[in-house]
Amino acid sequence: MRYVVGVDVGGTNLVAGTVAEDGSEILGVVSEPTMPAQGADAVISRIVKLAKASIAESGKKVEGVGIGSPGPLNTKTGIVLLTPNLGWTNMPLRDRVSEGLGLPATLDNDANCAIFGEWWRGAARGSKYVIGLTLGTGIGGGIVIDGEIYHGVTDVAGEFGHVTIDANGRRCKCGNYGCIEAYASGPAIAERAIEGIASGVDTSLGQYVKGDLTKLTAQIVYEAANDADEWALEVVRETAALLGAAVAGFINIFNPEVVVICGGVTQAGDKLFNPLRSEVKRRAFKPAWEACKIVPGTLPGTAGVFGAAAVFLQKHWGLR
Amino acid sequence: MRYVVGVDVGGTNLVAGTVAEDGSEILGVVSEPTMPAQGADAVISRIVKLAKASIAESGKKVEGVGIGSPGPLNTKTGIVLLTPNLGWTNMPLRDRVSEGLGLPATLDNDANCAIFGEWWRGAARGSKYVIGLTLGTGIGGGIVIDGEIYHGVTDVAGEFGHVTIDANGRRCKCGNYGCIEAYASGPAIAERAIEGIASGVDTSLGQYVKGDLTKLTAQIVYEAANDADEWALEVVRETAALLGAAVAGFINIFNPEVVVICGGVTQAGDKLFNPLRSEVKRRAFKPAWEACKIVPGTLPGTAGVFGAAAVFLQKHWGLR
Repeated sequence: MRYVVGVDVGGTNLVAGTVAEDGSEILGVVSEPTMPAQGADAVISRIVKLAKASIAESGKKVEGVGIGSPGPLNTKTGIVLLTPNLGWTNMPLRDRVSEGLGLPATLDNDANCAIFGEWWRGAARGSKYVIGLTLGTGIGGGIVIDGEIYHGVTDVAGEFGHVTIDANGRRCKCGNYGCIEAYASGPAIAERAIEGIASGVDTSLGQYVKGDLTKLTAQIVYEAANDADEWALEVVRETAALLGAAVAGFINIFNPEVVVICGGVTQAGDKLFNPLRSEVKRRAFKPAWEACKIVPGTLPGTAGVFGAAAVFLQKHWGLR
Repeated sequence: MRYVVGVDVGGTNLVAGTVAEDGSEILGVVSEPTMPAQGADAVISRIVKLAKASIAESGKKVEGVGIGSPGPLNTKTGIVLLTPNLGWTNMPLRDRVSEGLGLPATLDNDANCAIFGEWWRGAARGSKYVIGLTLGTGIGGGIVIDGEIYHGVTDVAGEFGHVTIDANGRRCKCGNYGCIEAYASGPAIAERAIEGIASGVDTSLGQYVKGDLTKLTAQIVYEAANDADEWALEVVRETAALLGAAVAGFINIFNPEVVVICGGVTQAGDKLFNPLRSEVKRRAFKPAWEACKIVPGTLPGTAGVFGAAAVFLQKHWGLR
């Protein structure tokens, strides 16, 4: 059995894991904060160190490294063109990590990797037509058709977070208006919860953060929803309805077998997924929603690592 | 040179043409009203008669028939599941036309055929990643990746008209709310123009229909826009902006080389395409819009016939 190390580079955390070529195991999963403010050199050193720590902990001989990074990026040259969260411009990330580890490397988009990981070893296993969303600080997405990531002509494809669901809606960080990211990302969910509190709704949400609303996160909203707080439940339902409107459109476009939804939001469980599925059923074409399941990812924390490793494996040895 | 006949089945008109296997010529292009109210048998007889007329006029020996029809439909069984405009349910259209002509047949979605036709012989020739919209009474769409129509798992893929651009917006005929079809289809454009007239805007549009606003169509709005009527221009610009919001999302998802826009709306020319391109530029990711041209179809009236023929050719002999 051969092994590769997968690295998931996030704006907040780095995660690395050593993956068997048949995907049967992931060893030495390690993580640490990205700390982008320290500059590119420090972050790249930390990536290399973390990958080495994963390899050491796994006790395996590793033959390559697959990297998943925020984009836009170029999968052929291995260069990250621009990442506002990391502050990088035209960063040759693939080659720098490759040199640091003395291993061949591949680079792909982080959300592509997460959905590819879910196709390879998770919730979308065995499906030919897969799309997925990663819900976190931003909303990313990926498309896997016939066991391959669909990249489009300049590696931008799959940006489901930046599709307009309200042409005159909230300004999104991407510059567009009314993107689903502006409503259903973690910060957007927290913001909507706070807006309700400011307007005087009856809720116990404040108690979760000891009255300091700047500490309110989407995670806390899910927690309060699980504790049956009415306003938190309403925010989750509203998020589900907006996500449902967006996902219905994606289903009408792609007619996939599976929509995988990854990220912290999946902690809300059926409280999110039930109204989401209802909304999709209400909006999408019947032969499309009938053929499609909408499911949470089953590899929390490691989907991106599995996927980054799988990109390397597919390129070099073919994927099993 | 071998020949096949392509038939484009529309809610209003049928069009047939005899196409050379290398796409170098289309002969015997003939058309007649569909008249769906006469019932399925009458329409199918008319399709067969029209295809025979095309073959006779072409003077060629024809070896197959490709059919494009509104859907949803099943490309494998050749059955049209449901067409509100034609009043059909579970209609074995492919086999009935095949028997009527004594020729092997294929069936695909009409909008898929139009975009496939534009890829094969029209505006999107030579491109690997193509998406397209057909703007008419409804808004259809098609996806051509690597020279093949992308169908998804149950042949629904490409329904770009039924993607929400305003989650709380106008009810669409499909049952969903805020679909782009509810804003940018022909009837929706006419309706918005009439709403303005009703609210008292200064416009010469009434003169084009001798004061009978029930006769106002999108075509007339384009005509008036070309004559510099300010309200007509405003309706075209507004349509372009809404289409631009939708197309920006499609570009962020697909990252195509070309977006082809087919149908009567293209008569508005640069008055539509210039603001549409500006809106896409304002909203889409830079590496996505930089890589993508947005162009009118170049096969008005025959894109669907070329494409329907191409589906047959690709299945039976491979496409040149």
